[in-house]
Amino acid sequence: MSKGERTKTAILEHATGLASQVGLTGLTIGVLADDLELSKSGLFAHFQSKEALQIDVLNHAARRFSEMVVRPSLQESRGAPRLRALFERWLKWEDDIALPGGCIFVAATTELDDRPGPVHDRLVELQRDWIDVIRISVRKGIDAGLFRADADPDQFAQDMYGIMLSLHFHRRLMRDRGAESRSRRAFDALLERAAP
Amino acid sequence: MSKGERTKTAILEHATGLASQVGLTGLTIGVLADDLELSKSGLFAHFQSKEALQIDVLNHAARRFSEMVVRPSLQESRGAPRLRALFERWLKWEDDIALPGGCIFVAATTELDDRPGPVHDRLVELQRDWIDVIRISVRKGIDAGLFRADADPDQFAQDMYGIMLSLHFHRRLMRDRGAESRSRRAFDALLERAAP
Repeated sequence: MSKGERTKTAILEHATGLASQVGLTGLTIGVLADDLELSKSGLFAHFQSKEALQIDVLNHAARRFSEMVVRPSLQESRGAPRLRALFERWLKWEDDIALPGGCIFVAATTELDDRPGPVHDRLVELQRDWIDVIRISVRKGIDAGLFRADADPDQFAQDMYGIMLSLHFHRRLMRDRGAESRSRRAFDALLERAAP
Repeated sequence: MSKGERTKTAILEHATGLASQVGLTGLTIGVLADDLELSKSGLFAHFQSKEALQIDVLNHAARRFSEMVVRPSLQESRGAPRLRALFERWLKWEDDIALPGGCIFVAATTELDDRPGPVHDRLVELQRDWIDVIRISVRKGIDAGLFRADADPDQFAQDMYGIMLSLHFHRRLMRDRGAESRSRRAFDALLERAAP
């Protein structure tokens, strides 16, 4: 990486943490400049607009998510171990120190679902990619005879996402200390229903 | 109701729909005045501050939620019928024409989980009330022998909330037309696990 790229990556790292707290739509070049004590003009050299900054943050977070959650999980063996790795690594991701406000994709979802535009479209693509990782992992488990032949990958993915969203809600808003172990029990029940 | 109360209720009705789209924290007296083409000073007579407006909107939405979802469901017989009524009426609530941006409580959750203050605290109380409605309905079903003795009301409530959140996400952000029937299948499976 060039010095310029390293600087931009460091700024994006910081911006991603900030977005997890103020929301993606709250992340403007002005807000970021204040938080970093940098000049707005300096940041404009890296990000040409608020939308470009927000899309860069989504892409940066997606790369981190891929490194921390998806890639290592896909090295686990097919079926339940792979799905469980995706789930457990997602739990860790939510707790990551770099995301003081929790998963930015979860927060961005309710922020952006009524705001059409390029940031919305990029978020939908990235969420689609993540759901596809779950769906395809279930499909491969079915094909290998590790899940029931009539298990439904779309159903599994929607149910698994619900367990994650409910944990996010109970842990972050409600400060419910029992939520994480309940989410594990829900996930165990989901895997059990898919077992042959 | 006095004329002043009727006016305030009409403004709150409008403000709740607006908050479902711009977010609760995006709802300021200025934004509401622009949208209604009223003067800010006129609105200040009804709401003394942005926080007072946001709390009034939460309370107004909670009253509507109670009328549309909770009260009629509690008239259903105990056990599965009552829980199913809560679920089905929640689905209708999300589709309500008065909430063009979907459930404002779902959106407010990710907006406010990092913003301490009176609006956050009121949201937590109202969400606690809703989770308690589910928990207590499950508990009464257990006591009446309609659910398994070892069913866990906290687990049921967290799982049911996840089904709703995942539907909200798949329907609103992903525009997934199959999401609603999948959410019903997930709820059927949840009731089945609780059956004696």
